[in-house]
Amino acid sequence: MSTPPTPQATAATRRPRGRPARSGLTAQQVREQLVRAGVALLTERGISATPLEDVVAATGLPKGSFYHHFGTKEAWVSEAIGAYGQYFERKLQRHFDDPTLPALQRLQSFVDDACAGMARYGFTRGCLVGNLGQEVNQLPEAQRQQLEAIFARWEDLLAQCLGEAVRAGDLNPAAELHTLAHAFWIGWEGAILRARLCRSTEPMTCFVTHYVAGLPRA
Amino acid sequence: MSTPPTPQATAATRRPRGRPARSGLTAQQVREQLVRAGVALLTERGISATPLEDVVAATGLPKGSFYHHFGTKEAWVSEAIGAYGQYFERKLQRHFDDPTLPALQRLQSFVDDACAGMARYGFTRGCLVGNLGQEVNQLPEAQRQQLEAIFARWEDLLAQCLGEAVRAGDLNPAAELHTLAHAFWIGWEGAILRARLCRSTEPMTCFVTHYVAGLPRA
Repeated sequence: MSTPPTPQATAATRRPRGRPARSGLTAQQVREQLVRAGVALLTERGISATPLEDVVAATGLPKGSFYHHFGTKEAWVSEAIGAYGQYFERKLQRHFDDPTLPALQRLQSFVDDACAGMARYGFTRGCLVGNLGQEVNQLPEAQRQQLEAIFARWEDLLAQCLGEAVRAGDLNPAAELHTLAHAFWIGWEGAILRARLCRSTEPMTCFVTHYVAGLPRA
Repeated sequence: MSTPPTPQATAATRRPRGRPARSGLTAQQVREQLVRAGVALLTERGISATPLEDVVAATGLPKGSFYHHFGTKEAWVSEAIGAYGQYFERKLQRHFDDPTLPALQRLQSFVDDACAGMARYGFTRGCLVGNLGQEVNQLPEAQRQQLEAIFARWEDLLAQCLGEAVRAGDLNPAAELHTLAHAFWIGWEGAILRARLCRSTEPMTCFVTHYVAGLPRA
């Protein structure tokens, strides 16, 4: 799935505001850079395969910056999860609330966007929530709940979109919208995993085609 | 999903055969123990979160045994992938070839077995192939292909089972069996991931219910 731009790209296009640190960036900008690096690295590799050395190397910031802003890797991961959740929610709203498309085509529009994002990053970036879900045995309980809450939010947004398809007469009014939205996000994470493994968006389109075939029609 | 018994359990129930090493086990038994430990640990955590120290600790064998038998972590991972693939293929054949059940119920029988296995290990063990697929960015190309080949084999087995459902008149003869089998394994890995995250088999049954709803009926 597409992810926010890498921290390097962001740093190159922004001017520091407020009092600059030795890096030439404000404290807020340093923090944002570290969170963005977190989103990028965790989306590529997950937590276990991301040593702090790689985080600071990705930003070009000194290691002290990391400890100053976050104290622990766990706190930094939590903030990256939150940032990814917000970023992804905006993306979903952009697609699922698009009034120019019929509701079921909005889902396809999101899928097309996700396929383009996967290809743009050469299938190296998956879904941060899925990656960290795979590491659940090593996650603190608070982060496990953070991931569950993000899935619940995504399911709400899709259920609303499917509800519009019911109102438009495209889906059966008896459709269990939350169960259907739940089934989508369950399988979608498998589609992302498989797309990365075979370096193709084909598993994403295959999954969605079968998912849509299973929706109860009006 | 259920996995083979842990190495500890196996060691406790077996007597050494042939000339025993210092551990009291034959070379073959030592090798098997290390591979079994690999299947268990990689199914729980994947590669990045499994240091060699944990492998030897899980078996109680000296570190030298590991290097003697495998030389590198990569060789050991490849053998564990192969062992898991064989184990899982036998499981699938047991369910999908069961002549006492209608073909579509054989799929449900596999799902029930997988749900029981997930619960038995307290949702700590996922699918080795899915776990390692999530780490694809760090995998050698040969292992990536090994995982793809295992998915292809699982898809063949499910496509054959779905073919029997066609012959029994339960599915439409125009059904694209391999595409349908492909869609199952794509989403199934997402279902395993989500079941571990929320510590419940509910995502597995939710996914399968929607999957079966999307199958083209006769």
